[in-house]
Amino acid sequence: MKLYEKLADDIETLIRKGVYRPGDRVPSVRQASQQHRISITTVIRAYLLLESRGVLESRPQSGYFVSVRVGAGNVRSEELRTSRPIAVSATVDVSRLVLSTLRSIGTDDAVPLGSPYPDPQFFPYEKLNRYAAAAGRRKALWGVTNALPPGTPELVRQIARRYLENGMAVDPNEIIVTVGATEAINLCLQAVAKPGDVIAVESPTFYAMLHAIERSGMKAIEVATHPEYGIEVEALAKIIESGPIAACMVMPNFQNPLGFQMPDERKRELVDLLAKAGIPVIENGVYNELYFGDSHPTTLKSYDQKGMVLHCGSFSKSLTAAYRIGWALPGRYRDEVEKLKFLNTLTTSVIPQLAIAEYLERDGYEHHLRRIRKNYAQQANLMKSMVTRFFPAGTRTSTPMGGYVLWIELPEKADSMKLYQLALARGITIGPGYMFSVSDNYRNFIRLNYSTPWSPEIEQAVITVGRLAASCARQERGGRL
Amino acid sequence: MKLYEKLADDIETLIRKGVYRPGDRVPSVRQASQQHRISITTVIRAYLLLESRGVLESRPQSGYFVSVRVGAGNVRSEELRTSRPIAVSATVDVSRLVLSTLRSIGTDDAVPLGSPYPDPQFFPYEKLNRYAAAAGRRKALWGVTNALPPGTPELVRQIARRYLENGMAVDPNEIIVTVGATEAINLCLQAVAKPGDVIAVESPTFYAMLHAIERSGMKAIEVATHPEYGIEVEALAKIIESGPIAACMVMPNFQNPLGFQMPDERKRELVDLLAKAGIPVIENGVYNELYFGDSHPTTLKSYDQKGMVLHCGSFSKSLTAAYRIGWALPGRYRDEVEKLKFLNTLTTSVIPQLAIAEYLERDGYEHHLRRIRKNYAQQANLMKSMVTRFFPAGTRTSTPMGGYVLWIELPEKADSMKLYQLALARGITIGPGYMFSVSDNYRNFIRLNYSTPWSPEIEQAVITVGRLAASCARQERGGRL
Repeated sequence: MKLYEKLADDIETLIRKGVYRPGDRVPSVRQASQQHRISITTVIRAYLLLESRGVLESRPQSGYFVSVRVGAGNVRSEELRTSRPIAVSATVDVSRLVLSTLRSIGTDDAVPLGSPYPDPQFFPYEKLNRYAAAAGRRKALWGVTNALPPGTPELVRQIARRYLENGMAVDPNEIIVTVGATEAINLCLQAVAKPGDVIAVESPTFYAMLHAIERSGMKAIEVATHPEYGIEVEALAKIIESGPIAACMVMPNFQNPLGFQMPDERKRELVDLLAKAGIPVIENGVYNELYFGDSHPTTLKSYDQKGMVLHCGSFSKSLTAAYRIGWALPGRYRDEVEKLKFLNTLTTSVIPQLAIAEYLERDGYEHHLRRIRKNYAQQANLMKSMVTRFFPAGTRTSTPMGGYVLWIELPEKADSMKLYQLALARGITIGPGYMFSVSDNYRNFIRLNYSTPWSPEIEQAVITVGRLAASCARQERGGRL
Repeated sequence: MKLYEKLADDIETLIRKGVYRPGDRVPSVRQASQQHRISITTVIRAYLLLESRGVLESRPQSGYFVSVRVGAGNVRSEELRTSRPIAVSATVDVSRLVLSTLRSIGTDDAVPLGSPYPDPQFFPYEKLNRYAAAAGRRKALWGVTNALPPGTPELVRQIARRYLENGMAVDPNEIIVTVGATEAINLCLQAVAKPGDVIAVESPTFYAMLHAIERSGMKAIEVATHPEYGIEVEALAKIIESGPIAACMVMPNFQNPLGFQMPDERKRELVDLLAKAGIPVIENGVYNELYFGDSHPTTLKSYDQKGMVLHCGSFSKSLTAAYRIGWALPGRYRDEVEKLKFLNTLTTSVIPQLAIAEYLERDGYEHHLRRIRKNYAQQANLMKSMVTRFFPAGTRTSTPMGGYVLWIELPEKADSMKLYQLALARGITIGPGYMFSVSDNYRNFIRLNYSTPWSPEIEQAVITVGRLAASCARQERGGRL
C-alpha cells in the first residue's frame, strides 16, 4: 500500500469513527503535511482519493470537508463558463508571442509549465532510436524518390491499422504523411481556403490553428465554446448565416487548452451543419490517443458522409515530437493536399517514418499509451487540486478529459502576460492566454502543462505561480504591488 | 595504367608514327570497341583523354579526327543557344508533371537518367547513420523546444564555417535551418512577395523555383538566359522597365538544367540591377559545392550590399537528401523567414541536424566533396560524349561546369513527353523539358542525370534514349513511326 493510500484509509477510519463528522473541515493540506511529516503531494493524493470515494468534498478557497452525503459524488472546483467571444473576423498575429514563449521553455532549467509538448521522458525514444539506426543501414533509404508523397507505405499501413483499432475505417490511400501536424494543418487549410478568407475557430483556440490562418493571410472568427461540450453549434450556425465562412477549424477531442471531449451527438450536429453549408472542416486530432475515459473518442471524420472533413494527426503528442511525423486524411481534398505537400517540403524524411512504423508493428504502442494516459489522468487531478488550493479566490479551472494541459481563468484583474514575466523571472514558464485568441479575450487566463512527472520542484512551481497570480490580481485592483 | 589510358597511348603512338595523319578520321567508337574487344566507355574515355591532350577532335555526327593543329584545343559538340522566351507572365502548374515523373524514377528498377537527385551511393550515409544513432541516445534531444528556429546551434556554426572556408563571411545569426532547400525557397519567396505577384526566373528554370511560385499563387516571367553565362541582365532590365516584378529567382552556379556558372562580373551586374530596382533576389545555391573548376564559385550574396539577396542552400545535393536539411540566409528578411519557418513546420528535426554537424566537424567533408566533384566531372564528359555520338543529328548539349545534369536540345520536331513515355516503357527515365518552363519553350529538350557511376546499363540506356530520340524526330517529320 502506498503512503497516500494509507493516509486516506487513516482519515476515513477517523471519519467512520465519528472523529470528523459530515460537514466538518478536515486539516488543510499544509497542516496535514506538517502533522504527518509527509509531502503536500501525498496529502493531496490522499484527499483526492477520498474525494473519489465520496468521503471528502473540496470547497474552493476553503479546503476539504467531510461529505454531507457519503457517495453523493464530488464537488468540483469552480468551473469555467462558456466563452462568448465577439463575432468579428480579425487578422491573426500571435506567432511572435508564441515563439518567444516557447523559447523561454527551451532553456534547460526552466520549469516547463508553459510547454505545449509532452515531457519526453515517458516516451520510448531508445527503442525508436534503435529502429532508426537499423533503417539507416539500408542504403536504398538514403535516396529521395522512394520517399515521395504520400508517404512510406509501411507507415501509412500502420496509421490506417491504428485508426481501425480505434474504431474508424480509413482508406490507406487517403493518408498523406507530413512534417508534423503543423504541416498537415497548414496544407489542409490552404487546400480549402485562400488569403483573405474567414475561418471559424473555437474560442479559446489552439494557437497552432491560428498560426495556420496567420501563415496563409486569412482571418479568424471565434465561436462561443462550452468548456465541456466544445464549439457551440448554434453560435456557429448564426455566424455562418451572417457572412461567408471558408472553413472551420476545430479540435473536438481534448482541445488545447480546454481539454474537453465533444459529445458524439454534438460532433454529429457539427458535421451536419457544416456539410449542409458546404463548409470544409479541419479536424485537429493530435491528442486523440490521450483519453482518460474508457475508450478512444470518435472523430468528426467518422460522421463525415461527404469527404468534407480534413482530419489531421501526429505522433508528436503520443510517441515522439522530435521526429516531426504527422499526417492528413483530407477527404475529397486529398489530391490537392498531396500536391501541396510535395510543393511545401518535397518529402518527409523516410528513416523516422520507418522507425515509427517498426515500433508500431512490433513494440507495444498500446501498452505505452495506457501508461501515459494513466499518468496524465493522475497528474491532471493533482494539478487541478493544487490550483484549487493555491491560486487566488475567483480562479476557475477546466476539467481535462484527456491530453496534458489545464486551462485556468484567473481573477479578472490579473494579466497573464504580467504573470508570465513574473514567473519567468523565477525560472517558471506558463502559457499566457493571449496566445489562444485573436482578441484579448483571455488576458486573465493561463495554460499549465501537467505532463512532467510530479516532483517537489513542479509542486513548488505551481505554488509560486499561484502566489504570483494572487499578487497580480491584488496589484491590478490596488494599482501597485 | 588503366585500360583507357593504355588505349589512348597506343593511338597517340600510331598518330606520332604517321599511321593517322592530321585531319584523318580515327575508327569510330563502335569500331574501336569491336577491334580491341573493349567497352564503348573505355574507348570514349580514351578519345576524351586524347581530346584533352589536343591530339583528337570530335566533330558532331561525324566522329573523332586527328587534330589539324595539335594543342589547338578541343572542338566541342554543338552548343546550345541563348534562350529567347516570350516575356509574358504566366500562372504556374508544373508540379503534377514533375511529381509523376519523379514517381516513375522511384521504382527500383528504372534507370534514373531523369532523376534530379544525386545517386546516393557516393554518399557517406553509414557515417551519418552512426552520428545520428549517437545523437539519438541523448534524451534531451527528444524534446521540441530545444529545436525551435533558427536551428540547432552546432549545425548553424558548421554551416557558417563552411561558407567562410569557401570565401564568404556569414553571420551565423542570419542562418535559418529548414526542411531542405525546398522549404527555404518557399519561405524566402513568401517573405518578399504575395499571391498574384510576378516573379522573374531564368529560362529554362529549375522547377523547384516554379513550384515555389505555384505554391504561393504567384506568376512567373521567363528571362532570356545564356547557356554559359546565365540570366541576361539586359533582358531582365527591360522586363523590369515594362512592369512590376516582385522578386527574381536565380541559380547562378551550376544551374539546373543548364549547368552554367555565371561569371563574377555578371553576378555583380545582376545584384546591382536588382538592388537599384529594389527587387529582392532569391539565390538557389544548392549545387555550389559541386564545382568542376579550381575553386568554389562566388555567390550573389557576396556582392550584396543591401541585404536584398536571400540565399538558400542544402546538404541534399552534396551529402544526403534523405535528411531533408537545408537553410536560408535571408538578408534583411531574416526575421520574417524565421517566423514563416516556425509557422510552416515548427522545427526541423534535430537529430539529423546534429548528425550532419558532427560529420562536418570531424569527418572529412572536403575529402568527400573532392571525390564526388571528380566523379561528376568525368561522368559529365562521358555523358556528353555519348550523347554527341548516339543522339540524332541536330542535337545540342550544355557544357556543365558543375552539378550532375546535362541539358539536351533535340531536333525541333522531337517531343520530350513522347520520348519520356517511350523511354519509360523500356525502363529508363528522363527529365522532359516541359518541367522547366511555364510555356512549352522546351518541348524538345530533355535533362539527363549523370551522377550514377558509369556502368554498361547506363551506357546502354543512353544509347537507347538516343535511338528513341531519333525515332521521335523522324516520326514527327514523317507523321508516323
